[in-house]
Amino acid sequence: MNKEAVRNYLTGLQQSLMDAFCGVDAELSVTFDSWSREEGGGGDTRALSGGSVFEKGGVNFSHVMGDSLPPSASAQRPQLAGRSFEAMGVSVVMHPKNPHVPTSHANVRFFVAEKPGEEPVWWFGGGFDLTPFFPNDADIHYWHETARNACQPFGEDIYPEFKRWCDEYFYLKHRGETRGVGGLFFDDLNRWEFDRCFALQQAVGDAYARAYVPIVERRRHHPYTQEEREFQQIRRGRYVEFNLVYDRGTLFGLQSGGRTESILMSMPPVARWHYLAEDDQPSDYSARLAPYLVPREWL
Amino acid sequence: MNKEAVRNYLTGLQQSLMDAFCGVDAELSVTFDSWSREEGGGGDTRALSGGSVFEKGGVNFSHVMGDSLPPSASAQRPQLAGRSFEAMGVSVVMHPKNPHVPTSHANVRFFVAEKPGEEPVWWFGGGFDLTPFFPNDADIHYWHETARNACQPFGEDIYPEFKRWCDEYFYLKHRGETRGVGGLFFDDLNRWEFDRCFALQQAVGDAYARAYVPIVERRRHHPYTQEEREFQQIRRGRYVEFNLVYDRGTLFGLQSGGRTESILMSMPPVARWHYLAEDDQPSDYSARLAPYLVPREWL
Repeated sequence: MNKEAVRNYLTGLQQSLMDAFCGVDAELSVTFDSWSREEGGGGDTRALSGGSVFEKGGVNFSHVMGDSLPPSASAQRPQLAGRSFEAMGVSVVMHPKNPHVPTSHANVRFFVAEKPGEEPVWWFGGGFDLTPFFPNDADIHYWHETARNACQPFGEDIYPEFKRWCDEYFYLKHRGETRGVGGLFFDDLNRWEFDRCFALQQAVGDAYARAYVPIVERRRHHPYTQEEREFQQIRRGRYVEFNLVYDRGTLFGLQSGGRTESILMSMPPVARWHYLAEDDQPSDYSARLAPYLVPREWL
Repeated sequence: MNKEAVRNYLTGLQQSLMDAFCGVDAELSVTFDSWSREEGGGGDTRALSGGSVFEKGGVNFSHVMGDSLPPSASAQRPQLAGRSFEAMGVSVVMHPKNPHVPTSHANVRFFVAEKPGEEPVWWFGGGFDLTPFFPNDADIHYWHETARNACQPFGEDIYPEFKRWCDEYFYLKHRGETRGVGGLFFDDLNRWEFDRCFALQQAVGDAYARAYVPIVERRRHHPYTQEEREFQQIRRGRYVEFNLVYDRGTLFGLQSGGRTESILMSMPPVARWHYLAEDDQPSDYSARLAPYLVPREWL
């Protein structure tokens, strides 16, 4: 187990994602914000706004330590709650302006839980998922193909497993729909030796920009109407609902006394709520999107 | 204990609030939506939108039954979780267009938890709270005075108790601020015989429009700028955060398989998130609001 290697990978990933997004969008303005927390550790937030392609987003690195692991950190192993811990990760959410460009999210993280006199317990987590508003089948196929290719070296069963996990995780029970068209999600990964688990985390982290940037490039000049823009903002309301009601990373951050502004960097710039918005739309946007908000096989 | 009397009061309150708001705002459009749920009961949602004074809002009545009381329903008495229950209430949220008119919320509710062979356990809950964006001291004083007057016949200690409870309940821990300037909040009220508890619920329910409408009338023609409007939308983001992360009513609704659209009627029409919005404002709006987002004595 080599914390330093993971940390180096994560800070390098943050930089390469910043390069990728600033390469796509020269007008993107970046706020650099380094912070530390009383309980130990801190982070390096890169808040993005005002681009011609991306309206709002962020690429955050954080590395925090604490005396007591919050229960939300390891759903599979509640017996670790209360151990001292270290958590590091990179978290990305990108909210494009054009409603034909999907929103995307990626996260890779590494946890170590320690207790005097016992072996440290470590695990990886991560994944990426796509939230289109006006879905395009070829884009979604490409997204999932890139995800599968990243997992391939680790076994044929990895993509189907992490894809299913993603569908299950990004699910809004109160709406009866998934957040988007999914991708990969994994947690509590320590089934192999450290090097192999770490290699999988890197494969997933590296695949995200490869999966997302070509979709952004293909759709960024797609014409759109004010009505489509409003629909995007209503759907972003669902994004807010997921993040605040269900997302384990958000809960972990708020529970562990994390930095609120960095945790809520995932919030969209503007979200709308209308009563029964589905019935209220000027066209059949919701009806066209609905079939994409159930788990489907894309490959 | 007389469920029918409570129900009659609540449906009457709903109607009188509708009359009050439509009286203030003739352009308000009302969507009537009666719904029922599989597990038992239903509701009568009045969704408001597109007014000249109120941008969005709702006045909801619901009366639901279930086989198993969710834990969120009675924080004080977890031993009741799992009993069969009946819950009825009126819930109101009004989001005015003009940022100088505060947002307000009111709720009155009645619960009965039953178990074969045992006496039914009943309790009342309710209150109202005010969320100004550009606070006016005279308005806030009037709001709290009306709240105190409503509680007065039930003892000198009621207003201070329910006022403190409101400050504690409507608190965003991750932001270190209250949702607004408070008002009244009470739950698990069964300290007196039924008639007296019910009379207090009615006093609180009846006081809400008396507290709110005069403030709306005083501020509705206040001129405002686009910057003030944007600040309102950022502050509404905090309203969303409170409702989705902390609000027990929202959690109860979602946990008990409530009607999502009616529960999330409390959402604002438009909310914004900017990274470190406080530092980002064109003027000192946040600095001027901050002293109002800590518990204060208003009377």
